[in-house]
Amino acid sequence: MIKIFRYGHRIKRDERATTHVCLAARALGADEVIISGDRDEGVLESVEKITGRWGGNFKARLCDSPAAEIKKLKKDNYIVQLTMYGEPIQKIEAELRKKNNLVVIVGSQKVPPNIYNLADANVSITNQPHSEIAALAVFLDRYFEGHELDKKFDGKISIKPGIRGKSVVTCE
Amino acid sequence: MIKIFRYGHRIKRDERATTHVCLAARALGADEVIISGDRDEGVLESVEKITGRWGGNFKARLCDSPAAEIKKLKKDNYIVQLTMYGEPIQKIEAELRKKNNLVVIVGSQKVPPNIYNLADANVSITNQPHSEIAALAVFLDRYFEGHELDKKFDGKISIKPGIRGKSVVTCE
Repeated sequence: MIKIFRYGHRIKRDERATTHVCLAARALGADEVIISGDRDEGVLESVEKITGRWGGNFKARLCDSPAAEIKKLKKDNYIVQLTMYGEPIQKIEAELRKKNNLVVIVGSQKVPPNIYNLADANVSITNQPHSEIAALAVFLDRYFEGHELDKKFDGKISIKPGIRGKSVVTCE
Repeated sequence: MIKIFRYGHRIKRDERATTHVCLAARALGADEVIISGDRDEGVLESVEKITGRWGGNFKARLCDSPAAEIKKLKKDNYIVQLTMYGEPIQKIEAELRKKNNLVVIVGSQKVPPNIYNLADANVSITNQPHSEIAALAVFLDRYFEGHELDKKFDGKISIKPGIRGKSVVTCE
């Protein structure tokens, strides 16, 4: 089980970025997203609407006490934080693949020391400033070694991939 | 040379998403980003500020006539569009790696048929709805086969990656 922990969501400012985090997590094989920060039912609804139509078992929930929640998750999960200061993914990915239950923390606001210190591994996708959405995507594709790209979602709606045009299959 | 074409940027709504596209493109080995849609000098300034401090030769520019620009680029470049309707990246990536000059179109607004039809290849990173930032990140990591993660930027500022803490090296 791979859970993504979106830390410090801010309504309005992060609405789209957090939605991108959730949808990328779902599409690229994660099982759940947990969102701390401002309580934003709208983001949950967007994600649930996608899952309802496009399938899969992806879960999304809000969390009011991030440190307590991560401490609790730490009992059964290996905690990874994605940060530009961390160890390069290419050095640590083989080790991470041995862990079956991961929580991947993805910051929005700056992640404070009490959260930072709960991580078992701090991992960087390059040491350059860029995007937590991009970092999460590369992380998941490498963790799953590309197998996530073949995941079946069995949704009410799906796409038949093609060279040209748009082919949508619905069974609603 | 890998250029990213950000199609249909909208001021305010896309400000952060377009910045994420630009910074992920830079961090993950692309050479240039071209932004069509609303003219947004602010996004260019954000990207130039990062490149100025963190190094590398990444360029960013605005473009008022996307179809004309892509037609022009098509003379010397293979045009890829990232779309959930396209051929799976895992099937086509080996073929794409043979092309040295790529333009990768990443939509913000819906990409209209005249742009869609200019693409030499339509490529999907899963056929699920998610994030163009995530899709671009996976695309670049696969196109470069991970070599982009070792790219040197020789900036005024850099990070010494570590297991814990934050180690920033400045030579300003």
